[in-house]
Amino acid sequence: MDLLQLGRDTLAKQPFSQLVGAQLTRFDPEGTELRIPIRDALKQQNGFVHGGVVSYAADNALTYAGGAVLGTNVVTSEYKINYVRPAIGQELVARASAVHAGKSQAVVQCELYVIDEGKETLCAIAQGTIARLAAAASAE
Amino acid sequence: MDLLQLGRDTLAKQPFSQLVGAQLTRFDPEGTELRIPIRDALKQQNGFVHGGVVSYAADNALTYAGGAVLGTNVVTSEYKINYVRPAIGQELVARASAVHAGKSQAVVQCELYVIDEGKETLCAIAQGTIARLAAAASAE
Amino acid sequence: MDLLQLGRDTLAKQPFSQLVGAQLTRFDPEGTELRIPIRDALKQQNGFVHGGVVSYAADNALTYAGGAVLGTNVVTSEYKINYVRPAIGQELVARASAVHAGKSQAVVQCELYVIDEGKETLCAIAQGTIARLAAAASAE
Amino acid sequence: MDLLQLGRDTLAKQPFSQLVGAQLTRFDPEGTELRIPIRDALKQQNGFVHGGVVSYAADNALTYAGGAVLGTNVVTSEYKINYVRPAIGQELVARASAVHAGKSQAVVQCELYVIDEGKETLCAIAQGTIARLAAAASAE
Repeated sequence: MDLLQLGRDTLAKQPFSQLVGAQLTRFDPEGTELRIPIRDALKQQNGFVHGGVVSYAADNALTYAGGAVLGTNVVTSEYKINYVRPAIGQELVARASAVHAGKSQAVVQCELYVIDEGKETLCAIAQGTIARLAAAASAE
Repeated sequence: MDLLQLGRDTLAKQPFSQLVGAQLTRFDPEGTELRIPIRDALKQQNGFVHGGVVSYAADNALTYAGGAVLGTNVVTSEYKINYVRPAIGQELVARASAVHAGKSQAVVQCELYVIDEGKETLCAIAQGTIARLAAAASAE
Repeated sequence: MDLLQLGRDTLAKQPFSQLVGAQLTRFDPEGTELRIPIRDALKQQNGFVHGGVVSYAADNALTYAGGAVLGTNVVTSEYKINYVRPAIGQELVARASAVHAGKSQAVVQCELYVIDEGKETLCAIAQGTIARLAAAASAE
Repeated sequence: MDLLQLGRDTLAKQPFSQLVGAQLTRFDPEGTELRIPIRDALKQQNGFVHGGVVSYAADNALTYAGGAVLGTNVVTSEYKINYVRPAIGQELVARASAVHAGKSQAVVQCELYVIDEGKETLCAIAQGTIARLAAAASAE
């Protein structure tokens, strides 16, 4: 089966991803791309995309990037995110990939961009650990 | 004006916080508490609360905790989250407070609990930096 | 055998810990304490303790705190540190403990203090993940 | 004056960097490289480079990378490191650069490699925030 289709099927089964409106546009061992059309419901009081939405995108893109290399059911153990600019625009794009994959976990990175009138600008970066479920003590 | 009411007014102006259904139940310099009733729309494919919701709660509680001590318009510069258990239950509770507050930024911590049939269990911890908007180079 | 003595024996076998001059003053499942007498060789150009020394103390205290609860050979998977004040004084103290311990990993926290003329002041906080060696994919 | 020479002069004034034996081999707005010849004194009990040394290298390379773009006296506010492999070899190399620079702070990334018999292998990655001293509330 197509890996991208498999990823999309999983995303379709995540009610919160549906609530946010996330779309999986790439999913292979070299990289994952998640896109979120920006609408008012995703904003905070100043009209920027809420940090929680950017976090959701980082968290989910990192998890997918880990799953693409660990080839199994995974969970996010932890991650860290640095916001560099307010996200203002029409679409949020998260691109993640694995920096290293071991037997039970992968170390992953993610860059988050906002697209405003066709121009893509970095708005956050993230780095974290994705664990295989069997090895995930924290999810037992 | 009441600080808690002020915080609730801000939360009411965050469309994404309304979409998630977050409630501010404490907001003072000693601590912030954010509560989210768990409903199906906030879950992932296994029936747990989606990591993105836990992240949203951490991000927002940390921001409020920083705002309570910096006394001004603030943004989250960065944070890190470790998930320790799947969030399964009826309510998610984020409790955050400042560990240190300087002139332009505060270092904050957050504990996230899930309440299942009245029993509160730790599901994640977070740590981050909240910056005053004037000093927030990353948000200029 | 005494757990503290066991920890001290391990520390004595770490040449870098000897170079830094670290001492283990507590080591049990409830907490770990590492103390470092401050000398000129541990400073940076402004006379503060070098951030690398504070990082070393956090890294090692977190690892010990994980080992105390995982009861086995462990490695530090990752951690994050926020510096809150320059470390100026006669002694650096790192206190760490586990927030959660699973089968293969533990989530740990650490507070770092500097003691100046008998007064203890917080200079940094850290949070991370310690993994059992068997489960440590990243150390295979 | 030569920027690299300026950086080397600062490193020479850091007693701890001298104790560790760090050398600055690149220092410009596009990137910083710090190299540490591995000797027994930098190891832990299993013969790997101690995590505290890898942390020191990350912390210092990140600080330099921030300083190269902020063009001023800086401090490390915070950073996060993921270890991906034990560092075994003859030399540790930290390469850092700024992902974003604002008025008061920069967001920076670092990759850490170990060189063993001429072969370079990734052993850790780090991500953090460097602040200008004037804006560094946490260092006031």
